[in-house]
Amino acid sequence: MMAAPSRPQIKLGVSMAGLGYHPAAWRHPDANAGGNMDLRHYIHMAQTAERGLFDMAFLADGVGIRSYDEPAGALPRQANNVHFEPLTLLSALAMVTDHIGLVATASTTWNEPYHVARKFASLDHISRGRAGWNVVTSHTDMEAQNFGASVMPPPNERYARAGEFVEVVCGLWDSWDDDAFIRDQTTGINYDPARQHVLHHRGQHFQVRGPLNVARTPQGRPVIVQAGASEPGRELAAETADVIYVAAPTLQTAQEYYATVKGRMARFGRHPNALKIMPGMMAIVGNTAQEARDKYEALQALVDPVVGLSQLAFSMGDLSAYPVDGPVPLLPQWRQSRGQVMYDMAQRQNLTIRQLYLAIAAGNGHCQIIGTPGQVVDHMEEWFGSGAADGFNLLPVYTPAGLVDFVDMVVPELQRRGLYRTRYEDGTLRTRLGLDRPSSRYQ
Amino acid sequence: MMAAPSRPQIKLGVSMAGLGYHPAAWRHPDANAGGNMDLRHYIHMAQTAERGLFDMAFLADGVGIRSYDEPAGALPRQANNVHFEPLTLLSALAMVTDHIGLVATASTTWNEPYHVARKFASLDHISRGRAGWNVVTSHTDMEAQNFGASVMPPPNERYARAGEFVEVVCGLWDSWDDDAFIRDQTTGINYDPARQHVLHHRGQHFQVRGPLNVARTPQGRPVIVQAGASEPGRELAAETADVIYVAAPTLQTAQEYYATVKGRMARFGRHPNALKIMPGMMAIVGNTAQEARDKYEALQALVDPVVGLSQLAFSMGDLSAYPVDGPVPLLPQWRQSRGQVMYDMAQRQNLTIRQLYLAIAAGNGHCQIIGTPGQVVDHMEEWFGSGAADGFNLLPVYTPAGLVDFVDMVVPELQRRGLYRTRYEDGTLRTRLGLDRPSSRYQ
Repeated sequence: MMAAPSRPQIKLGVSMAGLGYHPAAWRHPDANAGGNMDLRHYIHMAQTAERGLFDMAFLADGVGIRSYDEPAGALPRQANNVHFEPLTLLSALAMVTDHIGLVATASTTWNEPYHVARKFASLDHISRGRAGWNVVTSHTDMEAQNFGASVMPPPNERYARAGEFVEVVCGLWDSWDDDAFIRDQTTGINYDPARQHVLHHRGQHFQVRGPLNVARTPQGRPVIVQAGASEPGRELAAETADVIYVAAPTLQTAQEYYATVKGRMARFGRHPNALKIMPGMMAIVGNTAQEARDKYEALQALVDPVVGLSQLAFSMGDLSAYPVDGPVPLLPQWRQSRGQVMYDMAQRQNLTIRQLYLAIAAGNGHCQIIGTPGQVVDHMEEWFGSGAADGFNLLPVYTPAGLVDFVDMVVPELQRRGLYRTRYEDGTLRTRLGLDRPSSRYQ
Repeated sequence: MMAAPSRPQIKLGVSMAGLGYHPAAWRHPDANAGGNMDLRHYIHMAQTAERGLFDMAFLADGVGIRSYDEPAGALPRQANNVHFEPLTLLSALAMVTDHIGLVATASTTWNEPYHVARKFASLDHISRGRAGWNVVTSHTDMEAQNFGASVMPPPNERYARAGEFVEVVCGLWDSWDDDAFIRDQTTGINYDPARQHVLHHRGQHFQVRGPLNVARTPQGRPVIVQAGASEPGRELAAETADVIYVAAPTLQTAQEYYATVKGRMARFGRHPNALKIMPGMMAIVGNTAQEARDKYEALQALVDPVVGLSQLAFSMGDLSAYPVDGPVPLLPQWRQSRGQVMYDMAQRQNLTIRQLYLAIAAGNGHCQIIGTPGQVVDHMEEWFGSGAADGFNLLPVYTPAGLVDFVDMVVPELQRRGLYRTRYEDGTLRTRLGLDRPSSRYQ
């Protein structure tokens, strides 16, 4: 048993997808350029995050190469077109880690709830209570085209399906009471039928009988993560999420988001502490501010303009018809809700298209901090202490160096200030995040 | 490098699903009654099979509890209602084994080819070339009801979909040439677009654009396993399978099957050696024939009649309306093609319903051998040498003892006769099975 911490603790996650969040990360001389398909790279990342006592490691995902009419030649210049499928990768990583949470992305638009419920339940058993599901609705037509559709369904349809999908998955996770399996070798009774629950779900989008063919999991249900910034995304998160990864470039945006989403939870009968909001954070840390800045500029110098424009296309749409050194145009609609965040940032800072793609290259609408360990922790402490964040999801700009630097330099400073654990607490991912183990709906 | 083996070598697989193939396996005093949800159980099984130099370990699967109108009370008396999802489990096992092939079942009826292609490609990378996919079309309505349907589609529809499904998956596995990823950090070119292939599949059942978001795998394509005994199953296997797990209770049945399926391969432009036929084998081994028989009878004594009838229902349909000590009826149609195999066996041996369920309890239509190591190897050598089998898929009657006994007692005898490897050959699962690495369709 640990002594109770003297003050609230910051929660930390790390995004492990690809070779880092910066589009030129794979070109960095220290990078393993083939790391996106190299298991050793991910083992090193997960074990480094665990050395840094992180709550969880996270894998973003798309069900296809995610193309969005980016300029010709952009895709072959990006490293993350191929990668491991997240659930198979995290099961493997569960075997070489002991404490860190393992969060995989799965799309509600291109999956069936029974499969998703099973796989995450299985991962939760394999990892002894460390599984998390990042719920996304997907957004590129190229993914749709791998599943018999030509374009993505509109957002409202996707979110309606997502809401029912999460409901079915949570229902399936309650198929068996914790003590359903008696396994009495003498009488030959393996389970108690009264402690098995058949879902018989019949809804707008799904008919799912159940029960799940996996026992109730160590966490009762795996941690549910969402990233939704859009209006239906916020609503779904307030109702169902345990953790939110939000893109918030400024303290004010983060505080607004935090207050809005936590304020909606009472409507769903939930306490604000039942949801941890962890904004994305792009941090580059150096022994001096100049050293950190130099690391950043070395990466920025490697951004091909074709790739820079494609970064904007991802959130905003195709801007290649506009002069790259002219102002950022206001389009009739953004490709993603995050497009508006980007546009507002360009307006505020009076950025050209080129300046915008360079400004967001490393963060893509997330908060960017470049500085000494003290400066990074000042920032985290400010957000944590002022109703903007319960923790942070670190987006390493390049890997593994970006994560190694954070663990070696920032984590000790967080600990020195009493803001962060000095060893892992016993229990599951939920325990460490300060979330209750949900009781079954049947109890 | 090994010296060339002096004679052809028997291939060996082991089925790891549940707690053993015998319905009373979980009640055996030596069993870990909760092993079906205990990762340590599967680690022990996989590592034991690897100690025995097995080619592969296999996980059967259903996408739901597989019920088929069995007598009331049967399901709660069975242990395998809950279990790990196979792909997540095999990824974990890939990390605690080095050589053994890892074969998971995935249904073509209740999946999408893009997901299946991705997951097995990912497992093949994680395991460094040891992945295999057991292609099934599913067969119980309870599985269908977890995916919005009320009953299973008829077999011909399922097999038509399965054929196209396998075609799409193999196409997706060829999305990238082996050398597509240049990863030139200086020029910023990550892949060569000329070595990327977009599938653009448009068929009867699927429209799948591609490319796959996983690089071409160590095996080129994971090993494809099938079990189909039915007419469309044989046809699909002759066209697409690398390995067949067939249920063949007698030498003659096995020889007929072997000749039929291998004889069809030329029609698909395939050499008979490109397919390994590995009949299921239920073996109970003892130091003496009596010791083996005693082990068998100890398990048989634990079969609850309700469970015995449900074993027959699985293949034949519900026989509970017929006197259990009367003859086995000829039903207008069997639930599975294997039902006819069972009926023929009952006719041949003049068995009552009770005698039939006891006779097949341990083997379920597969060949059963109970005897000394010498007797078991005599049997294997006879089948292997007479055009009935290229190897065997061991179905341990109870675990882990059934596998441990085989590894400790039968494997040394196989080696003594020069029928089996004495160490693992270098390479992938395909290499060890004597299968070529497929070249890409684009080369």
